[in-house]
Amino acid sequence: MSDQPAESPAPRRGRPGYDQETVLRRAIEVFNRQGYDGTSMGDLAKELGLTKSAIYHHVPSKEHLLSAALDEALDGLTTAVDSAAAAAPGTSAYARLRTVVQESVEILVQHLPAVTLLLRVHGNSEVELAALKRRRAIDEKLSALVQAAVDEGALRADIPPDLISRLLFGMVNSLVEWYRPGGPVDADVLAASIATLAFDGLALHQP
Amino acid sequence: MSDQPAESPAPRRGRPGYDQETVLRRAIEVFNRQGYDGTSMGDLAKELGLTKSAIYHHVPSKEHLLSAALDEALDGLTTAVDSAAAAAPGTSAYARLRTVVQESVEILVQHLPAVTLLLRVHGNSEVELAALKRRRAIDEKLSALVQAAVDEGALRADIPPDLISRLLFGMVNSLVEWYRPGGPVDADVLAASIATLAFDGLALHQP
Repeated sequence: MSDQPAESPAPRRGRPGYDQETVLRRAIEVFNRQGYDGTSMGDLAKELGLTKSAIYHHVPSKEHLLSAALDEALDGLTTAVDSAAAAAPGTSAYARLRTVVQESVEILVQHLPAVTLLLRVHGNSEVELAALKRRRAIDEKLSALVQAAVDEGALRADIPPDLISRLLFGMVNSLVEWYRPGGPVDADVLAASIATLAFDGLALHQP
Repeated sequence: MSDQPAESPAPRRGRPGYDQETVLRRAIEVFNRQGYDGTSMGDLAKELGLTKSAIYHHVPSKEHLLSAALDEALDGLTTAVDSAAAAAPGTSAYARLRTVVQESVEILVQHLPAVTLLLRVHGNSEVELAALKRRRAIDEKLSALVQAAVDEGALRADIPPDLISRLLFGMVNSLVEWYRPGGPVDADVLAASIATLAFDGLALHQP
């Protein structure tokens, strides 16, 4: 499993010792630790052991780093949803939904810091508003997939489809609160466990 | 459904127009909006239309308000867990767990702002560390209840009990991200839907 974004930012002015990728990783860490709004370019410079003026040789602005981080998370989630939509003809909505849930978990684990940052964004700037817009588009595709699975008779109809979608992905997203790579639970086990809990349920009706 | 904490803070010096309860509600709103660390007593005074010195007639300190808010959330959740433990003899662990899940949702909805604040606390002070300690004690009781339900053969054993507990209450806690009282989903429907999804599963195995 790679920790790289789906598309790395285009190479820009760099200094020996800090490629753009490293600067982005460290910036995301700091944003998650002390909040994006609570982080200054001076804080980022300090984190990297650079002077406040030297950091501008690495990054044009704080917003640029935020934008790259949010795109990393959103690109991964969009790919997961769109690849399910493009599944082999005849694949049921149920099968596609179950795949999306598992793949969303894998994306979240692979891009944990970037997804964590995404989930904390509240629309305080143009960059954040654009990210929220992309997030809503993903949510709408997920809701449509849930509705299609209900319509084909594969999912229970006694819970409103919008609520199903919120609860499913609320559970997936809650992983950012506690999951840490290298811990006792592997990403595959986690993804399969979440799909089992959500679709098959925890109760053993047949002993 | 009452919006009051289980135990209201003891009455203290008040001014006409602002009882302690109102001051606490407004403070929790501001803490959730701009972050506890990012809120000063001056901000709270401004919110209440008071001068910076007058606010000290209402509250001794910012920490006092945080402590009251976190206790409100923790008292509710502790009561939900402990009342399940004290259920009628012969009640299965499964039935008790299912009740705790539903009651946790009800508590979260009744005390949404206070629980939201609790879930954002990261242990930056004595008050926050004490709250995290109480939260861990609740989590341990929940894990024990899940384990007991697995042991009695009522819950599937192919997902580790600790993971079940995290996923279940991760889903419940994710409500703070989107649930708003007065919206299209009633608290009862929400609580029942979450229990149905988690225990019975979304898939319709029998058409």
